[in-house]
Amino acid sequence: MSDTLLAERPAMDLGVSTRVAPLIEQVRAMVRDEIMPLEDEFHDEIPVGDRWQHTPRQTEILESLKASARAKSLWNFWLTDSERGYGLSTVEYAYLAEEMGKSPLAPEVFNCNAPDTGNMEVFERYGSDAMKETWLKRMLNGEIRSAYLMTEPDHGSSDATNIRMSCVRDGDHYVLNGEKWWSSGAGDPRCAVYITMVYTPTDGNKHQQHSMIVVDANTPGITKLRPMQVFGHDHAPHGHLHLRFEDVRVPVENLLLEEGRGFEVAQGRLGPGRIHHCMRAIGQAEQAIELMCKRSINREAFGKQLYKLGANFDIIAECRMEIEQARLLCLKAAWMMDNASAREAAFWISQIKVVAPRMSLKVTDEAMQMFGGQGISQDTPLATNWMNLRTLRFADGPDAVHRNFIGRSELRKHTQEKI
Amino acid sequence: MSDTLLAERPAMDLGVSTRVAPLIEQVRAMVRDEIMPLEDEFHDEIPVGDRWQHTPRQTEILESLKASARAKSLWNFWLTDSERGYGLSTVEYAYLAEEMGKSPLAPEVFNCNAPDTGNMEVFERYGSDAMKETWLKRMLNGEIRSAYLMTEPDHGSSDATNIRMSCVRDGDHYVLNGEKWWSSGAGDPRCAVYITMVYTPTDGNKHQQHSMIVVDANTPGITKLRPMQVFGHDHAPHGHLHLRFEDVRVPVENLLLEEGRGFEVAQGRLGPGRIHHCMRAIGQAEQAIELMCKRSINREAFGKQLYKLGANFDIIAECRMEIEQARLLCLKAAWMMDNASAREAAFWISQIKVVAPRMSLKVTDEAMQMFGGQGISQDTPLATNWMNLRTLRFADGPDAVHRNFIGRSELRKHTQEKI
Amino acid sequence: MSDTLLAERPAMDLGVSTRVAPLIEQVRAMVRDEIMPLEDEFHDEIPVGDRWQHTPRQTEILESLKASARAKSLWNFWLTDSERGYGLSTVEYAYLAEEMGKSPLAPEVFNCNAPDTGNMEVFERYGSDAMKETWLKRMLNGEIRSAYLMTEPDHGSSDATNIRMSCVRDGDHYVLNGEKWWSSGAGDPRCAVYITMVYTPTDGNKHQQHSMIVVDANTPGITKLRPMQVFGHDHAPHGHLHLRFEDVRVPVENLLLEEGRGFEVAQGRLGPGRIHHCMRAIGQAEQAIELMCKRSINREAFGKQLYKLGANFDIIAECRMEIEQARLLCLKAAWMMDNASAREAAFWISQIKVVAPRMSLKVTDEAMQMFGGQGISQDTPLATNWMNLRTLRFADGPDAVHRNFIGRSELRKHTQEKI
Amino acid sequence: MSDTLLAERPAMDLGVSTRVAPLIEQVRAMVRDEIMPLEDEFHDEIPVGDRWQHTPRQTEILESLKASARAKSLWNFWLTDSERGYGLSTVEYAYLAEEMGKSPLAPEVFNCNAPDTGNMEVFERYGSDAMKETWLKRMLNGEIRSAYLMTEPDHGSSDATNIRMSCVRDGDHYVLNGEKWWSSGAGDPRCAVYITMVYTPTDGNKHQQHSMIVVDANTPGITKLRPMQVFGHDHAPHGHLHLRFEDVRVPVENLLLEEGRGFEVAQGRLGPGRIHHCMRAIGQAEQAIELMCKRSINREAFGKQLYKLGANFDIIAECRMEIEQARLLCLKAAWMMDNASAREAAFWISQIKVVAPRMSLKVTDEAMQMFGGQGISQDTPLATNWMNLRTLRFADGPDAVHRNFIGRSELRKHTQEKI
Repeated sequence: MSDTLLAERPAMDLGVSTRVAPLIEQVRAMVRDEIMPLEDEFHDEIPVGDRWQHTPRQTEILESLKASARAKSLWNFWLTDSERGYGLSTVEYAYLAEEMGKSPLAPEVFNCNAPDTGNMEVFERYGSDAMKETWLKRMLNGEIRSAYLMTEPDHGSSDATNIRMSCVRDGDHYVLNGEKWWSSGAGDPRCAVYITMVYTPTDGNKHQQHSMIVVDANTPGITKLRPMQVFGHDHAPHGHLHLRFEDVRVPVENLLLEEGRGFEVAQGRLGPGRIHHCMRAIGQAEQAIELMCKRSINREAFGKQLYKLGANFDIIAECRMEIEQARLLCLKAAWMMDNASAREAAFWISQIKVVAPRMSLKVTDEAMQMFGGQGISQDTPLATNWMNLRTLRFADGPDAVHRNFIGRSELRKHTQEKI
Repeated sequence: MSDTLLAERPAMDLGVSTRVAPLIEQVRAMVRDEIMPLEDEFHDEIPVGDRWQHTPRQTEILESLKASARAKSLWNFWLTDSERGYGLSTVEYAYLAEEMGKSPLAPEVFNCNAPDTGNMEVFERYGSDAMKETWLKRMLNGEIRSAYLMTEPDHGSSDATNIRMSCVRDGDHYVLNGEKWWSSGAGDPRCAVYITMVYTPTDGNKHQQHSMIVVDANTPGITKLRPMQVFGHDHAPHGHLHLRFEDVRVPVENLLLEEGRGFEVAQGRLGPGRIHHCMRAIGQAEQAIELMCKRSINREAFGKQLYKLGANFDIIAECRMEIEQARLLCLKAAWMMDNASAREAAFWISQIKVVAPRMSLKVTDEAMQMFGGQGISQDTPLATNWMNLRTLRFADGPDAVHRNFIGRSELRKHTQEKI
Repeated sequence: MSDTLLAERPAMDLGVSTRVAPLIEQVRAMVRDEIMPLEDEFHDEIPVGDRWQHTPRQTEILESLKASARAKSLWNFWLTDSERGYGLSTVEYAYLAEEMGKSPLAPEVFNCNAPDTGNMEVFERYGSDAMKETWLKRMLNGEIRSAYLMTEPDHGSSDATNIRMSCVRDGDHYVLNGEKWWSSGAGDPRCAVYITMVYTPTDGNKHQQHSMIVVDANTPGITKLRPMQVFGHDHAPHGHLHLRFEDVRVPVENLLLEEGRGFEVAQGRLGPGRIHHCMRAIGQAEQAIELMCKRSINREAFGKQLYKLGANFDIIAECRMEIEQARLLCLKAAWMMDNASAREAAFWISQIKVVAPRMSLKVTDEAMQMFGGQGISQDTPLATNWMNLRTLRFADGPDAVHRNFIGRSELRKHTQEKI
Repeated sequence: MSDTLLAERPAMDLGVSTRVAPLIEQVRAMVRDEIMPLEDEFHDEIPVGDRWQHTPRQTEILESLKASARAKSLWNFWLTDSERGYGLSTVEYAYLAEEMGKSPLAPEVFNCNAPDTGNMEVFERYGSDAMKETWLKRMLNGEIRSAYLMTEPDHGSSDATNIRMSCVRDGDHYVLNGEKWWSSGAGDPRCAVYITMVYTPTDGNKHQQHSMIVVDANTPGITKLRPMQVFGHDHAPHGHLHLRFEDVRVPVENLLLEEGRGFEVAQGRLGPGRIHHCMRAIGQAEQAIELMCKRSINREAFGKQLYKLGANFDIIAECRMEIEQARLLCLKAAWMMDNASAREAAFWISQIKVVAPRMSLKVTDEAMQMFGGQGISQDTPLATNWMNLRTLRFADGPDAVHRNFIGRSELRKHTQEKI
């Protein structure tokens, strides 16, 4: 038993609380009964006309669903410890995120979609009153969307200290130059604001060389170079854009906290986001195992239902065991986030960030295999889920970076040396 | 999320309770400070003289440690819900079992060793007053030991319905004939009683064909054929014996419950035992990762500490993630045992029975590899732990049987068919 | 050593022969210098106008490359044992297939693309003179393309005895009714002929219930219902079509061999095709490990080249070991195809069919991870390769079916029982 | 395809040659019919009396088997390219080693046992005429045995440049001081000579700091401290000894080659030895899969033969695929040893050194699981094989060192940098 456990005095309740149980039911019902039935129609509309605008029907679908969610007060759950939100704990929210993971539309419908939740969290924690008025309010209402600009094409961003977008003060403005890519959501016509990591070298250590600044998406000097593709898909109109900044002038008051504190903002932003991603991944694993079970019951080959063939009992069993373990680890990480310091919680968040996407990829892959060719076709959500899950092994830090952090933390338990 | 979770109303507290926290500290301290320092001496005594008797020094070591444990009231923790014991929950006991797993002597020292705990549980739940007086009392005092006779050489015992030791009523006695093997603990000179599964065919279904009967170890007609070896070791004097029963006469009142209810007793016995085994396995995994970390800090090759070489950060990180997941799953299974029906808990116990030994074998194997040749030698506990853990993948049901059960249970969530 | 090995008298030469060595160099050079430079342009043209026609520029690219290949006599290598081809052995062709696997355009450029090679093999082995004149000649010239219609949406086609497209004789014609899907290449406007598996029940055993018939793609009654998508891509204009046959009348002389011998044709067709697929998969694995190595040398993070970080040496080493093993197994399977009976070779072909795609997926996945987000983007061929490789785990039989066959074959070595 | 392959001009014949085919049959027959039937009796004699002497019956068994082998001219196969031996190629010998791997007694019976073969190879290649007369001749006759003293307790020997046994010239002698452990075979009363790696620092690079010297086992000053245990077994009388050297005086003419060339001798010695080990490991994998298949046919559970249950077809199939791949890789490495430079061959030998023991451990482990408890008992050879195979992952370099070498070699294909 790790020493941490002994120190854990508040009850480590990882179950479904009485408060959140009815919300889970409501979210699950709405996903199943209202959102999922419209998924295909929404998706099939995308290639009509300008790919980078929602069609009128898409807008109608999204807005009516959002209205329905708000009418049921199923909105902004992610604001875990704020008076603006439900006041749910991270553990409680985790169960809701799992349900929302089962439909690609659901997170936006409940205003719980990335990268907006992380960006709203930044405004909530670190933003000025003006920012809250200008951006946060509209985001909480689901009126605008946002992007988070971090990764750069020319520098290995798994080590964020490499980020080099220049940001030089010139009077009342900062002037930004450089390129960002994988700016997810920046293609959406409703995307109004970018939270942007920039390089502002100081005398401090390597984690004090960057700043975080709020950039209006319509500021002159920003060019959309191209959408990055994910397994050949541009995800229009959401998009993962490659952007160029040329002499982009941003008012000095748009800087968050102060120069050199960019990492502080980034860290505050990333923890909850990783847990949300992971719990959605677990929701997709549940979706996959359900599809796999139903397929193996309903389909025959060689004169038998599939589940009776070969290793299929074992495959299903292994998937179940991996899902349960990953969920418990994710809930433990959420509980640490609620009950321990950010530093302590980081050890657990890194673990779940490695474990959950990998597990969900495996379960989804097994489900695809159970379906045969249909498993990679448009007839199941598996292929789309798989591609999205695969990106999670890079997003918010590749596995190797998290494993390094976990390994170092483990070693530090046994030595005073710097490791 | 599985439906089960929604139904979980009592808080799913998987943490260290305030009640058990000081016990963990006491057990850990006694294992580290009193038991481990005597391990080598105890072990080195074994081959002196008759391998199937404890030497005087071994007896002295064991009895003085047991006396010390009793003096501290660290005794019989496993009696989770009995007034005779601590009244600990299974979750609480699990944390103690983890600590006891770190020394091969520890479980006996605290009177928490297999197969005695399971056998005592049988007497406690199903035994007559006479049995409690004759056997249970002395077992609770650590005066005698016991064995559990189930597996047979000629029948695949992974399917216990195959068991065929005959048991025929003859007046006031049952007459037993057949062979049992892997009767662990039957070599110990203090082993006084066998709980024995026998074949008593009835008209009922296949789980109503067997009975459980209490056999005095000194009954005439029992021959010790040979000790089974585990990776070449006979584990004398404990022993895993191959026994022959020839016209062994047992009083009818020794039958537990009644004819045909052998499976009922077996199931009641196995659940907690599996959790104990698994939590001890997790303790051994913690022991292995600690040794691995220390080795990788203290040893150099190619001019660097080992942890700086190759994949070692990643190996350590993967081990940590697997340990945490397995522990949480084990605690969840323990919690189900405390809070749900035996039938519901079985789904979780089968999972942990597959997961925990496999995980601990992997972590132990990685630790051996980090040590090089020394890792498989007498200089670390790793090789011994590995061999014992490997047996766990058969004991109380091989992995394949548990996976089959898990897979079936999962499929049943999606159909009314018999699966 | 398996007994088969002892019986192997012709030298098991798995190396590059002096005959094929210069061909490998020529193919490799043409892929690298002529084909790859045009890949992006060819691909970017696809969505212009009607997705199901080649654009003039695409036609120009393809035809000029084909002309270049023919001018160099790099054409129709796959005809391994025919006087029409090179007379290469399967082992020799395997090395060429590996090179062609490195560009998605290459197989067609050398007229070695699936499903045309398999279909040409069918015409060569089983076709009438008229068929050779009408179809084979033009296919060998690269003038027309073809499809192979086997899988059906309503029947688990991993067990091909399930195929149920009806084929009823009516005078001089057969009348076909039913649906086929995953008809790869049927979207291509040049696709002129379908080799089609149909259900023609007889009194024979379950492998004598089907026939193979040649269908002109322009026969009335064939409807293109939709393209199946592979991870969201329709692969236009090639396409994997879902087709409906309604009273499609086909002249009786179009039947291959005779009624009930469909499986015989299918088996003759599949063996070489599987080896071609697998060797192309190995070519893609080589492409991936090369990209991974270069990336790890040229990219820095945390102040070091990537290869110096974490487990990267080990990852590269594991990939190399898996590639070498898979290639040798594939060459051995090719050698068996050249030197043993089809029945004996099948044991090896099933093995490589499981091993090669899985290996190449793993290596490609590791390479993607080394690139970070770029690895799944349009900037490397990795994502496209991955998706195509993933389909290989279903195509020509899912892994589970091959494993079952391998397992049964292995067991039969030890018993006379029917297994 | 790797460039190496293109350069391979001599036919890469990995099959059974006509020359070696009858030898394989003879060795196989003798192992099966003469050696295996005596294994249990030989093994059961070990603990009688002084564990470190052979009993008269053991000597009788060994010597009569050796006489039988010599009478059939089945002797000293390993001398691949010498006029003293058969003149077999390494590929040919590999097939024989596979057969000899199936019985722990077989290698000695055919005078092909480690570490003697490696040591004889050293005398053959680097020894003086006097050494050949004194030691090699008697070893080739099977009269004496030998040990190879390399690993030291206080220095990480995975990096052999760490070796520190001192060796200081004093007139006509070298004086040796230090400790060696894992000196396999040094417990055997017939062990007459040690080839010993010692530290003789020079001005050269780090691979020129050591020497190899021949030490008569009876030289004064050598103390046998203890036998190292392998999973609790001392392997008496063979033994893996921990030895202390105190002022051990060795004549200067016993130095092999000259001071500073110890690594040269070590490398020449290790290549063939690794291939022998690996092919024996493959023989054990074949033994395991055969046992697994037979068990799964002959044993029933749940009313069915085991092979019909769960994932057993798949498990057997996966084992078969891994065995075939590992064997082919091993044969390829042997072929490189026969046909390429030592430097080129090293890349392949490192690969097989990682692959073969790991594969054979996996197959053996699956076989154990198929047997249940019996699989780890004295009733099958599986547990013993497993323990011996596990040591192979350390012996002659741990996996991590080989993977590092493979990874570096792979990277060097793509850069001129020093890697």
